[in-house]
Amino acid sequence: MVAAPDPVRNSQELDEEDNTLRPSFLRKVTEALDAEDQETVYNLVEPLHPADIADLIELIGHEYRAPLARAITDLLGSDVLAELNDWVRDDLVDELEPDEVADLAEQMETDDAVALIEDLDEEDQAAVLAEMEPEDRAAIESALSYPEESAGRLMSRDVIAVPEHLTVGALIDYLRSDDELATEFWEVFVVDVKHRPVGTCQLSWILRTPREVALADVMKRDQTLIPVTMDQEEVALRFQKYALISAAVVDGSGRLVGQITVDDVVHIIQEEASEDILRLSGAGDGDINEPIALTVRTRLSWLVVNLGTAIIAASVVGLFQGAIARFALLAVLMPIVSGMGGNAGTQTLAVVVRAIATNQLTSSNTVRMILRELRIALANGLSLGVLIGVGTTLIFGNPHLGAVIAAAMVINNLVAGLAGILVPVTLDRLRVDPAVSSAVFVTMATDVMGFFSFLGLAVITGLAA
Amino acid sequence: MVAAPDPVRNSQELDEEDNTLRPSFLRKVTEALDAEDQETVYNLVEPLHPADIADLIELIGHEYRAPLARAITDLLGSDVLAELNDWVRDDLVDELEPDEVADLAEQMETDDAVALIEDLDEEDQAAVLAEMEPEDRAAIESALSYPEESAGRLMSRDVIAVPEHLTVGALIDYLRSDDELATEFWEVFVVDVKHRPVGTCQLSWILRTPREVALADVMKRDQTLIPVTMDQEEVALRFQKYALISAAVVDGSGRLVGQITVDDVVHIIQEEASEDILRLSGAGDGDINEPIALTVRTRLSWLVVNLGTAIIAASVVGLFQGAIARFALLAVLMPIVSGMGGNAGTQTLAVVVRAIATNQLTSSNTVRMILRELRIALANGLSLGVLIGVGTTLIFGNPHLGAVIAAAMVINNLVAGLAGILVPVTLDRLRVDPAVSSAVFVTMATDVMGFFSFLGLAVITGLAA
Repeated sequence: MVAAPDPVRNSQELDEEDNTLRPSFLRKVTEALDAEDQETVYNLVEPLHPADIADLIELIGHEYRAPLARAITDLLGSDVLAELNDWVRDDLVDELEPDEVADLAEQMETDDAVALIEDLDEEDQAAVLAEMEPEDRAAIESALSYPEESAGRLMSRDVIAVPEHLTVGALIDYLRSDDELATEFWEVFVVDVKHRPVGTCQLSWILRTPREVALADVMKRDQTLIPVTMDQEEVALRFQKYALISAAVVDGSGRLVGQITVDDVVHIIQEEASEDILRLSGAGDGDINEPIALTVRTRLSWLVVNLGTAIIAASVVGLFQGAIARFALLAVLMPIVSGMGGNAGTQTLAVVVRAIATNQLTSSNTVRMILRELRIALANGLSLGVLIGVGTTLIFGNPHLGAVIAAAMVINNLVAGLAGILVPVTLDRLRVDPAVSSAVFVTMATDVMGFFSFLGLAVITGLAA
Repeated sequence: MVAAPDPVRNSQELDEEDNTLRPSFLRKVTEALDAEDQETVYNLVEPLHPADIADLIELIGHEYRAPLARAITDLLGSDVLAELNDWVRDDLVDELEPDEVADLAEQMETDDAVALIEDLDEEDQAAVLAEMEPEDRAAIESALSYPEESAGRLMSRDVIAVPEHLTVGALIDYLRSDDELATEFWEVFVVDVKHRPVGTCQLSWILRTPREVALADVMKRDQTLIPVTMDQEEVALRFQKYALISAAVVDGSGRLVGQITVDDVVHIIQEEASEDILRLSGAGDGDINEPIALTVRTRLSWLVVNLGTAIIAASVVGLFQGAIARFALLAVLMPIVSGMGGNAGTQTLAVVVRAIATNQLTSSNTVRMILRELRIALANGLSLGVLIGVGTTLIFGNPHLGAVIAAAMVINNLVAGLAGILVPVTLDRLRVDPAVSSAVFVTMATDVMGFFSFLGLAVITGLAA
């Protein structure tokens, strides 16, 4: 341990390129576990950073998790648990007694302890809380009283709040004198007599200012305050928009009740963006550590909804069975029209869902964006229509068929563009998460209209007569 | 300006719920612009935060941007430009002379100035750099010498680096004495005589420690160092994994050359996650501010690739034209099998692409994940197969047809699950971004196998004889 620190962290265990644990390292751990050699396991894991221990527990097979946990009990601190995937953590926590969970929770910051306890069922929650020190229990119970995914659950109560008249020197003396104060903070909040924030001081400004200067002269008065009930996604967007490192959380009467720091927000930004991609595709939370039965249930319920829309689309084809029997080439070409519409609709949908989620698409520019998507749809539809129309004419020597498929392609691209923006915008106005349910409606629109426009035009123009 | 600060920032102009500019405010601005009333425009915009001014410029119609910029020239500081969307910024910068751009760049932090200048064409870049102070120019030229999207482009050169033997008191005196030092920093880096980082000190620890204590006793020796050539996505993953606020950037010989702070990383995490969703759906960058011709080109090239795969799938149907002519119901039901396979494949694909991007799916657990997806695919396939098989039997009174579609559904779900994980994992091993090209292969697999299994089984079992 006297050796100079290695410039790259834990280079023997971690792959240098993507900073993940090497398969060879995992193999060593599982081999030692198979041999029930707890000492070797401990020695292998001990040099790892807590975040990497969390990764190891996630990456290792389910059957190895309990033996691994037993071999490294005293390395399983609150910092490892805080980094663990929710499902894996629940697995581990289920093995522990309430007083052990309480011990771990007391070592954690409030927000991490809340994350640990909020997932327990009510009975276990009560048992764990009963084992905790009154002060920690009060903090956690108060956090649990706020809605899930709100600022109140996310915030830490350990804030440095000082009155405005203090000088820089007096503040530093105060920080040095009181052992009970928080040690991890990035800003000092200045409050009035009613404990309402009036300004914020970045620590670097404090360190660069002479002792005799008043805080009132260093602090920034203009600050972003987070209401305690604000949804975590909105919190994340404000951190991002205003490039915040930490922000004061205030209750309904404007009093300072806690702070949120950017390291908690980074996880949320990642999660919320992943959520959109996974919901759009109907994969639920898409968590690879989720119990498999739950994954099947989530995905299957989405597939069944899609089965319904597929049947509706098929019944449109059913209307044209006679035409298809007379001219089977229609059945060969019809999936091209519906499929291309589906692709174009998905493109628009992905763009619109992200623009809504990041507050780039607001009621101020909706009309402009609808016109933009329609122009794109027209340009793409015409290009694809000409391409497939000419191709069909040449291959099958049938200009009538070429004209029909070209026209259907233009129509279905316009339907795709229109549905791709109107469906998510409408759902958002109705306060339904557009990522969850848009895809069903858009796909149904492009399937139904793809079949209907192609087969319908074929029949109307006498192609399959 | 003497009024007490409002708890919610700019509440008249901003929608309280989602913190976006109100349409009514935008209307006031455009009306004033239409009336060429620059003073009203200025007074409306002046109270806004720079990030909101940036939003205003993005939200307002293209035709209003130049007049707006003229009306608020002295509000268009470097902080507004740094927040602007790349495309919108390029639009504005095109209107400016090189010396004006140089003035703005000099006010910015190095990383923001680089972002502003790297998008200019070579000639404009040279003209702007020629107008800058030698010191700023050297910093930007050196940043531009690193690859795009690398840590070297992202980092700021303004770091506080001090020797190990310093005491807390001496450090504070040094910070107070030197006006040239950075004012915005979150950690102090401790370096050895060769300027290699040996530890890092969070400012809150410094503030809580008596003056006589040596930095060596407060600093954390274990730190995450970022190589200057590291890709920004990897940088973001490390910030997230180790909950970093700032990190030292080192060159090839381990010397400290700059620092990256979390506020720059937050943007990257958001961007990289959005990128995945947009690329999966073939929408390119999906930037709603992009010139429309570029958007059409990006999306169209993806659609043409998909047209190719749709034609391949259609040609599979073409093999069975005779059977379809004899039994047109096959054409009615076949899109159900292919479509459901497509949905299931998309689910798996979304989960796998995100798991790869967030380093949750690594070579250590690939096999386990493939088996997991196969089990899910089997469970879903059997459920959907029974559902559609029984339904078909009852509706059409044809158990043979029911058995064929049920079997095809099981087969295509397995194909979907297998393709949904094998395609992105293989592309990732080949160092191709799985988000960009996976969807084409997976959709082709589920379309082709959907048609082939359903129509093939129908013919083999003599259903359409």
